[in-house]
Amino acid sequence: MFIIAMTLLFSVQVSKDHPRYKSLVIREMMSERVREGIVSQTGLIAHGRGEAFDYLLGEVTTPPALAAERAATACLLEAGRPVISVNGNTAALSAKDIVLLSKATGAKIEVNLFHRTEERADLVCTFMEAAGAQHVLGRNPDALLSGITSDRAKCSKEGIFSADVVLVPLEDGDRTEALVKAGKKVIVVDLNPLSRSARAATITVVDEVTRAIPNMLAMVPKLSHERERRSILAGFDNSQNRKASLDLICARLRAIGSEGKG
Amino acid sequence: MFIIAMTLLFSVQVSKDHPRYKSLVIREMMSERVREGIVSQTGLIAHGRGEAFDYLLGEVTTPPALAAERAATACLLEAGRPVISVNGNTAALSAKDIVLLSKATGAKIEVNLFHRTEERADLVCTFMEAAGAQHVLGRNPDALLSGITSDRAKCSKEGIFSADVVLVPLEDGDRTEALVKAGKKVIVVDLNPLSRSARAATITVVDEVTRAIPNMLAMVPKLSHERERRSILAGFDNSQNRKASLDLICARLRAIGSEGKG
Repeated sequence: MFIIAMTLLFSVQVSKDHPRYKSLVIREMMSERVREGIVSQTGLIAHGRGEAFDYLLGEVTTPPALAAERAATACLLEAGRPVISVNGNTAALSAKDIVLLSKATGAKIEVNLFHRTEERADLVCTFMEAAGAQHVLGRNPDALLSGITSDRAKCSKEGIFSADVVLVPLEDGDRTEALVKAGKKVIVVDLNPLSRSARAATITVVDEVTRAIPNMLAMVPKLSHERERRSILAGFDNSQNRKASLDLICARLRAIGSEGKG
Repeated sequence: MFIIAMTLLFSVQVSKDHPRYKSLVIREMMSERVREGIVSQTGLIAHGRGEAFDYLLGEVTTPPALAAERAATACLLEAGRPVISVNGNTAALSAKDIVLLSKATGAKIEVNLFHRTEERADLVCTFMEAAGAQHVLGRNPDALLSGITSDRAKCSKEGIFSADVVLVPLEDGDRTEALVKAGKKVIVVDLNPLSRSARAATITVVDEVTRAIPNMLAMVPKLSHERERRSILAGFDNSQNRKASLDLICARLRAIGSEGKG
């Protein structure tokens, strides 16, 4: 949070009058993280895709997103070996919140990158440690997730490989599918309710990651009873929930389309 | 085109089996253009936003897009002083096609950047010249477009400043609005039919720029008669057309939403 605040103070020259001020500030921060090597250039493109879908959602946590976040939190708390998988974009956008959620739920943090180099994996691990993480996995992967051929298959035995629940914010379809095939419950945070990740996941949170993770964190104390958690999970229908997000996007498309200059 | 082909051959390592192969290849090419200084990092984010909307359009030129392209081509051919405004993303994606369209319609090419530095302006001008452009404006702006305060206001007297029709692919809302206020007919290519640019423009082409410009180029020979051009322009309703694109997006959202794993 400190690093982000510093970035806001010193590297951004965006007029506060601009109708998309917050989004422009985050854009500049993401560019800064690219210069530092945390975010990849194609990670910036992925961020842009997310921006477009967030725009269609009205840049708010919708009621279905909130319900999915509640189920996701219950699922993490019910897990025996929960892991939060962190890539460059997640680290850049939510390092501090991920660390807090990890501590609150007992989930391990493992860095897994789409564009992996040893140097970048180390950079992102160090970035997470600077945000307060104490035991970050991902520097020395010693296992392979089957079903994907790229470097993303590399993982840690004590982390993702043996996890029963994996929270993978901002994940691609291949890896989400591979994690599900490996028998894990997979929670994704994905602004596109139609993506392969969103469709393959056990729980799909259609929300922006900087809103989703703090929401989940705030829910932890309210989910201390096992009966409550199990009741939430039993009542949650991911398919219905995802379609509810889709309906909201359609409604908003039509609403914006009929206002303004025509 | 040669540069793009070389990039495809030598810098991309994307499996052709990947369901989003073309989009991944363009992503890698755009990253390469960032390293060269043609595309800005926030240009990559903008590219991602476009990708998301193109995904919603089915990555095809829709019937309303084709109608808008026909009106846009007629408008350029009817113009007395047409100019094509080129930014980093447009140069990276469509340099060669922009040059051909410029020659076919008699439109001048002027480079105008959101993140302008003299060095980058020169780089993008040189990039356009390497693609075949003969008289590229934008290195030495000698006029200011009123209504915007940033460097994007800088323009050339013989180009954008005195133009009657300006084609601005991939433009931001502020500048589109300023160009319209300056009394110009403004043609935008924008995959988001709800953006401020899309709403402010005289003609809004809701299509991907690498499809839109070749389509327009192919229409030039068919629009050699003034009466035909004027009839097309008289019958074109930009507001209706933009809404037709919006309807297609909604229909596709629902169609994708109801297929697959639910």
